[in-house]
Amino acid sequence: MTKVSEISEFDLISRLETVLENNVTPNPDSKIELSIGDDAAVIGNLDNLQVVTTDAMVDKVHFVIDEVDMRDLGWKSLAVNYSDIASMGCKPIYSVVTLGIRADILVEQLESLYLGFSDFLNIYGGELVGGDIVKSDTFFISVTVVGSTDKPETMKRKTAVPGDVIAVTGALGCSNAGLRLLLNGELKKPSHFYDAHYLPKPRITEGINLLDMGIKTGMDISDGLLNDLKKICVASNVNATINIDNIPVHEDLKASFPDNFTEMAVSGGEDYELLVTGHESLIKYISDSTTTNLHIVGEIEIGSGNVNTVDNSGNKISMTTGGWDHFTEN
Amino acid sequence: MTKVSEISEFDLISRLETVLENNVTPNPDSKIELSIGDDAAVIGNLDNLQVVTTDAMVDKVHFVIDEVDMRDLGWKSLAVNYSDIASMGCKPIYSVVTLGIRADILVEQLESLYLGFSDFLNIYGGELVGGDIVKSDTFFISVTVVGSTDKPETMKRKTAVPGDVIAVTGALGCSNAGLRLLLNGELKKPSHFYDAHYLPKPRITEGINLLDMGIKTGMDISDGLLNDLKKICVASNVNATINIDNIPVHEDLKASFPDNFTEMAVSGGEDYELLVTGHESLIKYISDSTTTNLHIVGEIEIGSGNVNTVDNSGNKISMTTGGWDHFTEN
Repeated sequence: MTKVSEISEFDLISRLETVLENNVTPNPDSKIELSIGDDAAVIGNLDNLQVVTTDAMVDKVHFVIDEVDMRDLGWKSLAVNYSDIASMGCKPIYSVVTLGIRADILVEQLESLYLGFSDFLNIYGGELVGGDIVKSDTFFISVTVVGSTDKPETMKRKTAVPGDVIAVTGALGCSNAGLRLLLNGELKKPSHFYDAHYLPKPRITEGINLLDMGIKTGMDISDGLLNDLKKICVASNVNATINIDNIPVHEDLKASFPDNFTEMAVSGGEDYELLVTGHESLIKYISDSTTTNLHIVGEIEIGSGNVNTVDNSGNKISMTTGGWDHFTEN
Repeated sequence: MTKVSEISEFDLISRLETVLENNVTPNPDSKIELSIGDDAAVIGNLDNLQVVTTDAMVDKVHFVIDEVDMRDLGWKSLAVNYSDIASMGCKPIYSVVTLGIRADILVEQLESLYLGFSDFLNIYGGELVGGDIVKSDTFFISVTVVGSTDKPETMKRKTAVPGDVIAVTGALGCSNAGLRLLLNGELKKPSHFYDAHYLPKPRITEGINLLDMGIKTGMDISDGLLNDLKKICVASNVNATINIDNIPVHEDLKASFPDNFTEMAVSGGEDYELLVTGHESLIKYISDSTTTNLHIVGEIEIGSGNVNTVDNSGNKISMTTGGWDHFTEN
């Protein structure tokens, strides 16, 4: 085992680059003309619109470095960014990664992280074209991803209109179950909840398909269904009503958390499913005729940014959003 | 004064966005179709090639948050990235910024940082289109910048050939002087050395001009002339010889550091001047006929990655590179 302080920065970058070279299948349609090793990476012309997103994960906030599997952390740090690209209906093209590292981090830990990047890139495409490595007392990973579409518009948040139904691409709450078990020291690997929390599957194919089929309004569920839906409602200046009995919930979640699964499904964060709105007929057509499954959970109404929750009988249900606010100390 | 823990993330982002809105002159040719406030920013088609670079600055490594002027830190964190875009001969188009912040950071400190971004963007162009704010025990700023060129190639490191002369765009060593004075508690503001260290001026116009005039090989001087030149030599598989008596040095540096100015000019980091190679006639033509001043400091020779230093009499001079290695503990 080798501490990063025992080798030069050049050698460290070279070892990490080698992990990618040995593990990532080359893309024959690559637009990358110059990658890691110059002042900047060079990318050929992208089709029409491009989208860019950035998201960081920080030790003691998003994970604990001495406990996390670095390979899974590599996966997750790309996945959360790809999910934002998916939410716009775009295809990921390239990424850059900045690592803030302490001198006592092992090179092997970083190689594991890069193996996780490789695992992920082999499935979801796009290329890691560069980055920066800096010293930091707190370990962090900052990722930026650029995507592209040949459509004239991306999906966005501000286009929901009254009459739209609200749909999600899959079951909610399992990542939150993983987090709860983790905090209680009860999260097993491998397990469904482990995978939901650490190895989220961004809905890239579904996002591209949804935009292609004419869906205009979409985002990903990272802060919980109610919190994220509120962002659509504020951006579009509409209200929304969710029927909590229609939210797709995995059988394992119901079995393991019989008293809390609904709350976890509406308020648990980091599901990384897509949340879209559109005409009911279009939503149903997409779900019936393509591989993108959509579950209708509510509808958009005239209003000014509020989200209501009801049950199957139409009774109003009071739900705490439970989503976190990153800074406010509760 | 308001701690970031006293307001919501939404309100914090909104306040920082307001700083940009109130202080950055809108670009009438903007390609940005959707900016801060969605899952990703949306950018229209860029001209041909694009380049991407990322660089982070970290508390207690690159600055000390309780001592630094946050407005200047905002400037510098964009400037070091723009310098990489300049080194490719490209025009900056858009940036994303991720902040890692402690709960006790003041909103006003971050607003100052964003004022620094605004100062910088008003001079150097490009748009700040989004970012991420995360909690972190260590304050950091991670910036990614995308640039573009309508030329078929960018400048790069691997194209130097024997017979090329080596040139730089301006005087070297003054940023290092600023750092030395800072570490001794003697750096005054405003002063030439303060500006050199905290408010570097990336050579965007010069980089675009150099590429336009046919220069193929370039990079920026961030780790010191000898260290960075070695990167060109390794990438191009050539040697280089520098005449230390030909290196441009500011009069103030000679006056303040009469015994060390040459060492500081060849080894001090963070000058952010451009380092290029090319035919002597082309270098002289550019310097004589355009506003891009070039100072010839040496030449490229057959070899395999080594940099030699001589003086005006042709005597070999032994210089320590002095450039830092980020991780190796000396």
